[in-house]
Amino acid sequence: MPFYQYFNGEILPIDSPVFKTNDLGLLRGFGLFDYFRTYNGVPFRWDDYWQRFENSARLLKLILPVSQQETEKVLADLHALSGEQEVAFRFVLTGGYAPDSVNVVQPNFLIRTEALPQDNPAGRLKGIKVLPYDYVRDLPEVKTTNYVHMVLMADELRRQQASDLLFHKEGEISELTRSNIFIFQGDKLITSDRNILKGITRKVVMELAKPHFEVEIRPVMYKEVIMADEVFTTSTTKWVMPVVQIGDLPVGNGEAGKRTLFLQQLFEKLVADWGK
Amino acid sequence: MPFYQYFNGEILPIDSPVFKTNDLGLLRGFGLFDYFRTYNGVPFRWDDYWQRFENSARLLKLILPVSQQETEKVLADLHALSGEQEVAFRFVLTGGYAPDSVNVVQPNFLIRTEALPQDNPAGRLKGIKVLPYDYVRDLPEVKTTNYVHMVLMADELRRQQASDLLFHKEGEISELTRSNIFIFQGDKLITSDRNILKGITRKVVMELAKPHFEVEIRPVMYKEVIMADEVFTTSTTKWVMPVVQIGDLPVGNGEAGKRTLFLQQLFEKLVADWGK
Repeated sequence: MPFYQYFNGEILPIDSPVFKTNDLGLLRGFGLFDYFRTYNGVPFRWDDYWQRFENSARLLKLILPVSQQETEKVLADLHALSGEQEVAFRFVLTGGYAPDSVNVVQPNFLIRTEALPQDNPAGRLKGIKVLPYDYVRDLPEVKTTNYVHMVLMADELRRQQASDLLFHKEGEISELTRSNIFIFQGDKLITSDRNILKGITRKVVMELAKPHFEVEIRPVMYKEVIMADEVFTTSTTKWVMPVVQIGDLPVGNGEAGKRTLFLQQLFEKLVADWGK
Repeated sequence: MPFYQYFNGEILPIDSPVFKTNDLGLLRGFGLFDYFRTYNGVPFRWDDYWQRFENSARLLKLILPVSQQETEKVLADLHALSGEQEVAFRFVLTGGYAPDSVNVVQPNFLIRTEALPQDNPAGRLKGIKVLPYDYVRDLPEVKTTNYVHMVLMADELRRQQASDLLFHKEGEISELTRSNIFIFQGDKLITSDRNILKGITRKVVMELAKPHFEVEIRPVMYKEVIMADEVFTTSTTKWVMPVVQIGDLPVGNGEAGKRTLFLQQLFEKLVADWGK
């Protein structure tokens, strides 16, 4: 798998050191990213991911150095060079090199080609445990690179055999470290639109759910999650993933819910047929 | 000025690209730094800065790859290579290269040699304007690389001819983006110890102030800053800098206060004689 990366107009081997050390992403955490993948060799919901990337850049006042069309060509090149049927792409846009370590001059734009995470269909049926965590992301609408708490808590998650953190603040939940959260109250599907990064998988799942369930978009309280009939989380890598335990408490009877598994099947069918 | 940098055991020209793109500092904002300088060719309060750096690393659960003594030798080498009498050093410690973009394997340790910021003695007599900003730093005791708000607001600061942001949350102030804040109520000098990075200049100024003023360390309310007789901020680059305007409001009569200027002189004398 000879993966390559794109950096400011050049294509380079994935292991090349490319960043000089006065980059604002590195020195000041001033950066954003996005991450998506192919199914059947075709980038999934590419327009949506690009739009979100553009939106993050706009909110951090960074000017994208390339157009969507130019970027599409780069993706095709990186994909071809990988020799793989399926790949993931990680976009990283930083504030660029700053002589004074404060002011943006020209952003740096990186695209990494990455191997897909190992698929785990059994895990998707079994569901995951999450730990409640008192936190709300700063600038939640921007996919910034700030994931300090996730990295800091990685050991503790392993120790408690949990997969992720559920962020809550003042009784209201927002999201997991890298994924959105939904609850079922009976046949009503509820998800928050406050203090979250609006996931593309979240959007797709809402589209899939609408013909079958009442979908309610509003702030969600931590207590509601604890009391929900079913809970699941959505992301590019997790797809539709049942949440079966929150801290010490089981969700419902502690098994993946039937409505969740139904949406999971719809999503799996969609991506299985993607691009065909 | 042929400045060099140290990266994981190697000395390299300052402009070399050294970071591979799967570094957790870059991808996840999982990094910390420190910054200090020489006076008369001697690093100022080196033990204090090293201790703070060690403390930041410990709080992010990162193991320092080198000892203080080994680092001292690197500093001497970088200093000699620079050919300059005075230099600044920037330490950056990141979570290192992560195959899964989540788990720390081995930190990356960078030391950059940098030119001193231009000294501006007239500006120190005149004082600065700051803008109040509703924010409190996440993990304030750690000198993390997260300065998104500072970079984001750089344009607005320029537009309003302000030098920095004054962070406050729920009526309580904490710090400026990169410096601590003190107020004088009459002859009483007050500074907060909550939600702040404990500055070395702050520590030195408290030592200098103690024989002359009552020093009170406690939470400080935004209203107290507005109503204070004098306000100043301290940092490695700002020294003792009068704050003469907060948003639209002048501090006192809008000029640098006499007690502030007295402390400023004590500090300037200390650094002028440093290492002699």
